Amino acid sequence: VNLILLEPHELDPSGATTLDGPRAAHVLGVLRAGVGATVRVGMLDGALGSGVVTSVDPPRLSMRCRFDDGVPARPRVDLLLALPRPKVLRRLWAQLAALGVGHIILTNAARVERNYFDTHVLDPRVYRPLLIEGLQQARDTRLPEVSIHRQFRPLVEDDLSDTYAGDVCLVAHPGVPTSMASALAGCGARRVLLAIGPEGGWNAFELELLERHGFTTVGMGPRTLRVDTACIALLALAHDAIAHPADVLR
Amino acid sequence: VNLILLEPHELDPSGATTLDGPRAAHVLGVLRAGVGATVRVGMLDGALGSGVVTSVDPPRLSMRCRFDDGVPARPRVDLLLALPRPKVLRRLWAQLAALGVGHIILTNAARVERNYFDTHVLDPRVYRPLLIEGLQQARDTRLPEVSIHRQFRPLVEDDLSDTYAGDVCLVAHPGVPTSMASALAGCGARRVLLAIGPEGGWNAFELELLERHGFTTVGMGPRTLRVDTACIALLALAHDAIAHPADVLR
Repeated sequence: VNLILLEPHELDPSGATTLDGPRAAHVLGVLRAGVGATVRVGMLDGALGSGVVTSVDPPRLSMRCRFDDGVPARPRVDLLLALPRPKVLRRLWAQLAALGVGHIILTNAARVERNYFDTHVLDPRVYRPLLIEGLQQARDTRLPEVSIHRQFRPLVEDDLSDTYAGDVCLVAHPGVPTSMASALAGCGARRVLLAIGPEGGWNAFELELLERHGFTTVGMGPRTLRVDTACIALLALAHDAIAHPADVLR
Repeated sequence: VNLILLEPHELDPSGATTLDGPRAAHVLGVLRAGVGATVRVGMLDGALGSGVVTSVDPPRLSMRCRFDDGVPARPRVDLLLALPRPKVLRRLWAQLAALGVGHIILTNAARVERNYFDTHVLDPRVYRPLLIEGLQQARDTRLPEVSIHRQFRPLVEDDLSDTYAGDVCLVAHPGVPTSMASALAGCGARRVLLAIGPEGGWNAFELELLERHGFTTVGMGPRTLRVDTACIALLALAHDAIAHPADVLR
């Protein structure tokens, strides 16, 4: 945890807050902050700032917070992900938020098992704390938007075509020679939507539908990775390609 | 599983083998291969090839294998990793092997807890099957070498200085502006050793010792990641930078 994230209802108008639970335990037990110590704080979906500990009464502590270090930019990469197994998705939530994703779009696909949609891992009460955990790790305040779609075809044909008109849409596919850096060369300030299929991959219909709607296929070498490994690797490559554009620095 | 890995003692001189257990279950249950079907096989630390199913008697099956598709190159990236929590390391083994690591060097560091060295996750009987799982995912045969060091300073001063003389040694550190691609521009065919610290990072002494012994610090943006996320992200960036050198293609 590199940031204590707070929500508006937890603060009074002067910026004072009293915490217990995991955040207080972290400040007291890991940071060992006493009265007068300053800790990094952030307002969920708002600005970064600092909090000064005003009183300690374990397991509770009080802080007075100022949020004057600016609002982080929303991550420029969105993820279209075929719904993974619940166990895999549970592990991914925090890591996706930490890597930086603006919008996590979960979709059905031919190789997604129907019962994956019944999991409590798709309940905001389960995934929201995990996303916040990832933000606190990465020192970000911008909670990823999450949407869940049971029908792939209308999602691609209707929703994504509109939302991402003018943006860069990529679909990862093993063995494709186009690198992330070359696919994102010259992307400028546009948003990037990165599509990652289920274990076993998108089927031919899905891949063709994505390509017909403007998705460029990208690869990342000859090795086929598990979906969770691939998500992390591809998001890292996309953020790196955006931060160091091929046509400018390389 | 995209490859069935076999070991020399499992085959007779004609290339015939009889399997039961998870590999047979995968061939029969997932690939649904019957008599006469061909499946991708590999010899551990040896060549890739194909196996033709000669008989099926669930949960056992027999195959006749030929290994004539060449030996994959040993991954050019090695990892110097401060020993993570056992739970994290257990999850990492297969992912490291899948991403491609020649040598996994686990080391102590100031912020590594001593009792991490007592875990059974450091027992080859535990990690070897997990490494093989990762190789079968990525269709590789080259089992990563693993070594475990309880003393950081002699490891860096004596062992690594010799072993990696003339190679590229990098140490990841949050917030450093040097990108992986620029650090690996012009690395040619040299091996790359990538050092990743514990949760909380290397301390000042460790970082200084690494830099004094030829390690270049590299960053990957402003976000601080969990060690397991960082390992996957940084290995993906290193392999990408090697595959698409900045001075040639970008």
